[in-house]
Amino acid sequence: MINAILFDLSGVLYEGDTAIPGALQSVERVQASSLEIRFITNTSRKTRSKLLDDLRILGFKVNPDQVFTAVDAAKSWLQQRGLRPYCLVHENIQGEFSDFDQCDPNAVLMGDAAEAFSYNNLNRAFRLCLGGAPLVGVGYNRYFNSGSQLLLDAGPYIKAIEFAASVEATILGKPSAEFFHQALASTTAAADQALMVGDDVFGDVEGALNAGIQGCLVRTGKYQTGDECKIMGNFHTVDSVVEAVELILGGNC
Amino acid sequence: MINAILFDLSGVLYEGDTAIPGALQSVERVQASSLEIRFITNTSRKTRSKLLDDLRILGFKVNPDQVFTAVDAAKSWLQQRGLRPYCLVHENIQGEFSDFDQCDPNAVLMGDAAEAFSYNNLNRAFRLCLGGAPLVGVGYNRYFNSGSQLLLDAGPYIKAIEFAASVEATILGKPSAEFFHQALASTTAAADQALMVGDDVFGDVEGALNAGIQGCLVRTGKYQTGDECKIMGNFHTVDSVVEAVELILGGNC
Repeated sequence: MINAILFDLSGVLYEGDTAIPGALQSVERVQASSLEIRFITNTSRKTRSKLLDDLRILGFKVNPDQVFTAVDAAKSWLQQRGLRPYCLVHENIQGEFSDFDQCDPNAVLMGDAAEAFSYNNLNRAFRLCLGGAPLVGVGYNRYFNSGSQLLLDAGPYIKAIEFAASVEATILGKPSAEFFHQALASTTAAADQALMVGDDVFGDVEGALNAGIQGCLVRTGKYQTGDECKIMGNFHTVDSVVEAVELILGGNC
Repeated sequence: MINAILFDLSGVLYEGDTAIPGALQSVERVQASSLEIRFITNTSRKTRSKLLDDLRILGFKVNPDQVFTAVDAAKSWLQQRGLRPYCLVHENIQGEFSDFDQCDPNAVLMGDAAEAFSYNNLNRAFRLCLGGAPLVGVGYNRYFNSGSQLLLDAGPYIKAIEFAASVEATILGKPSAEFFHQALASTTAAADQALMVGDDVFGDVEGALNAGIQGCLVRTGKYQTGDECKIMGNFHTVDSVVEAVELILGGNC
């Protein structure tokens, strides 16, 4: 029995600047049902307010309290520890970290920095980590679909620094079980009464399963043929969020 | 009983443009002895001829036949298979691959590309590998000492693409056992009669031990305090190549 549904955003509700066909209506059906709904995203190319604006412009009816972002989780983690992060993040979200003292950094934060993943910037991150600075990752996603092509996400770059400096990153956001549970704690549902719908077989589906949550992989966004064979465990695979919602509202989960 | 000695170059004989104190004399002593000597390097910022020129300018007496490079090993591997590589390598060595058809690539070659490790270039490498192109790495080194600071080497970037595309690279050069054995095959020594002297505890020392060769770690170049605790197995740790040569010529290996 599913009481709560967790939706990934990019690749599930939209690709680039375009809504997935039927996604608007599917989200509306869930919002109108007795199911609790949360949106959880690792995206680190947009501020929280831009993310909410873009969802609204696309026509999605989303309550800001329903949205959990890895960027917010990373900010809280750094704030709680009073750290001075070197923020290797996208220029669009640099402003989200303006409250932090970033002089003489004693931590490294890595998001999806895109072109800012330069040789110089990565060398700086590497040397700080080799010197003992904790490495914090905004998600661990391998790639995403920009709407026109697949692009590297933060995960491979975090992996590079982990390998170079022989350290292990603390990953905030998906697939961290803590992040899934934090989103669920704002609902009345237990983990096994929740379903995660995502296009990332590792970050969304495997992450959810490891957190005791049910999983549903959609064949949109970054999905590639055969992705469902890349992980162990029982989960649904459906054509899109429309089919996922049919499945849930039809009581077939 | 040691009959052959394998020297790494950067970080062992020189750092940046400066010879390690005493290194010239130590190499001369070995060249004048009955020991066989080989130089094996993963460097992919210099062509073979530039490497030999720089050694000569620094004053090292080296026979070209004694030098084995990972770049040469990678070129042979690609040639033998008739592949069309996308060469994500340093601009200095692009010319080494001018004989290859690089249109419509069906393989990815990654060396220490430095600033050429841009987001765009890495996205291209990733998409080719995700589509099935084999990934070939020139060594798997994590970092090196440029003479003034530690800089990322090819290894972390290869790791990033391996993770992104869920593939495993073929590593030519160290720490591939095949590469060590190829250098040794040009001597009369068996593996256990040879000693590898290097500053990279993974690529040089662990690689040699896995190939059945004895290992000696020097505390110059990229060496960081505690490196000798990062791998298992028996090997020597000495202050520099001078002490390594003392050890060997004194019969203490």
